Amino acid sequence: MAILVTGGAGYIGSHMVLTLLEAGHDVVVLDNLANASRESLSRVAELAGKTPAFVEGDIRDRECLDRLFAEHTISDVLHFAGLKAVGESVAQPLRYYENNVAGTLTLCQAMAAAGVFRLVFSSSATVYGDGHPMPIHEGLPTGTPTNPYGTSKLMVENVLRDLARADERWSVALLRYFNPVGAHESGRIGEDPNGKPNNLVPFIAQVAVGRREALSVFGDDYPTPDGTGVRDYIHVMDLVEGHLAAMRVLASRRGVGIWNLGTGRGYSVLEMVRAFEQASGRPVPYRIEPRREGDIAECWADPALARKELGWQAARGLDAMLADTWRWQRTNPQGYEPS
Amino acid sequence: MAILVTGGAGYIGSHMVLTLLEAGHDVVVLDNLANASRESLSRVAELAGKTPAFVEGDIRDRECLDRLFAEHTISDVLHFAGLKAVGESVAQPLRYYENNVAGTLTLCQAMAAAGVFRLVFSSSATVYGDGHPMPIHEGLPTGTPTNPYGTSKLMVENVLRDLARADERWSVALLRYFNPVGAHESGRIGEDPNGKPNNLVPFIAQVAVGRREALSVFGDDYPTPDGTGVRDYIHVMDLVEGHLAAMRVLASRRGVGIWNLGTGRGYSVLEMVRAFEQASGRPVPYRIEPRREGDIAECWADPALARKELGWQAARGLDAMLADTWRWQRTNPQGYEPS
Repeated sequence: MAILVTGGAGYIGSHMVLTLLEAGHDVVVLDNLANASRESLSRVAELAGKTPAFVEGDIRDRECLDRLFAEHTISDVLHFAGLKAVGESVAQPLRYYENNVAGTLTLCQAMAAAGVFRLVFSSSATVYGDGHPMPIHEGLPTGTPTNPYGTSKLMVENVLRDLARADERWSVALLRYFNPVGAHESGRIGEDPNGKPNNLVPFIAQVAVGRREALSVFGDDYPTPDGTGVRDYIHVMDLVEGHLAAMRVLASRRGVGIWNLGTGRGYSVLEMVRAFEQASGRPVPYRIEPRREGDIAECWADPALARKELGWQAARGLDAMLADTWRWQRTNPQGYEPS
Repeated sequence: MAILVTGGAGYIGSHMVLTLLEAGHDVVVLDNLANASRESLSRVAELAGKTPAFVEGDIRDRECLDRLFAEHTISDVLHFAGLKAVGESVAQPLRYYENNVAGTLTLCQAMAAAGVFRLVFSSSATVYGDGHPMPIHEGLPTGTPTNPYGTSKLMVENVLRDLARADERWSVALLRYFNPVGAHESGRIGEDPNGKPNNLVPFIAQVAVGRREALSVFGDDYPTPDGTGVRDYIHVMDLVEGHLAAMRVLASRRGVGIWNLGTGRGYSVLEMVRAFEQASGRPVPYRIEPRREGDIAECWADPALARKELGWQAARGLDAMLADTWRWQRTNPQGYEPS
């Protein structure tokens, strides 16, 4: 029996594959390499001393999925494949809905046809929408995400909820990520964004390493201690360990479980900048720009439910997140494909 | 230039095709005949004295759509194709999301590739969710539909909203139907449900014509005048004329317009039963059963916006709705395919 990891060559997926291999699982990776590189899997194999099976293909390709399920005996699907750039999703909504929503429908249909009913889905705290008091717990109603990326995550949550209601063979985990950052402590794998990074920490890292001139900080007049936005950053290795815990719990429960994956503590943009300067020993120049539409002042998780039900909590602090990011960035300044 | 009508062989679609042909338009029908019959289009052709082009195919089949757009010059798409049985959607959510949501994504991608950007979408008042005071106007926020059918309609609305925001070439009408009933006054075309009807009027009609023994009335203890649920029924010919009006308005506006298609007046289940007995001269026995989960007490439209912006309002009253239903049912007791 193997675990299928969709999007397993991407940032979070590659860390997941490494963790699964190290935990003794057989792994099949499905990735269309749209925003990922084969090199990540070579390095995972080198770190783990084992090579995952790799299928280059797309979750939207039903024939490809059927072949994969015929050739491999899959017990669980960890579903990371998807597009994730908020700004791009606003410009190309059909592409986002097609990849994220229609792709997941096709994946679920292929799973059901193959008799595979355990699924861990990469959701996002964005499904909560605005206006909740912090911290955010899973009992809050979902809201209205402000962009197609977020809407696609909420749509998939609703599809999976309805699916598990209709057919009791399904065991589904909806894992609502806060802000994954960091890299494996080896520095051999990490986040390698295409083009301009959409997220804070990869942007800071590219400034520190000299690939970009300065960080844009969007808004310093939020009602937060230093006026900049506060978010709950979680180390990617903690995040993938949360998936492992969820997968284990799914083996003995049915229906849909929803768990936040966050640390329960927020840091402001300027705190992140200072901490990264400390971790890297490099200056991170920044300039204040106007607020970005759709951004909220602060957001952090109540991580109690995952602790209680999954027996999991984030173990790595901000120093590790940023030291590991920096190790990856410093030794791979151009990511996986040096220019 | 022709109008593409997806689902054009179905109940509402066939009435739309007839109305378009009579208004002088060329029409291409795309229908997978999953819940429709070719016979409806033969009768439409007989009534109109013109035959629409017919493509047997599926909105989920991108190659079929590309061929259709290559072979016909399409100005507007009226998109009726979709699954619509609430109960079935609860049991088969993936099928509903696949047909209704993924199908619409594929249709929109093919439209954009062909340079066609005018779309009229069959939405539903179910997207408002519960808890609003009556009547329902378009300024109200959407809610949480209680079943995958309704959720799929809301998802498509959100997709189309994001699409029109991203690309200003799109002109989209979201038409939120209340309860379409009735048939063309000729009695030659009408609603021909597969199996047990999901909606009140076709069920009543089948009881009146002797195909079913008695009507089940779900709940007689709602806070309504006679305790049974109150809905806004609209004659299918009024409904399709609303589409024609929307299509004309889209020719000179961009972005998304949202319009209720209802009459603004509600009737209870028991009022419908009495009125149908009157229209048909047949008894309609019924029995009271427990409330159905997800049903609300009452729902009717504020139709003012469509009157103002589309220059359209429903013209046919309850007597016409039921007399036309009965004419269709009486002369076609087994629908299009007599046993």
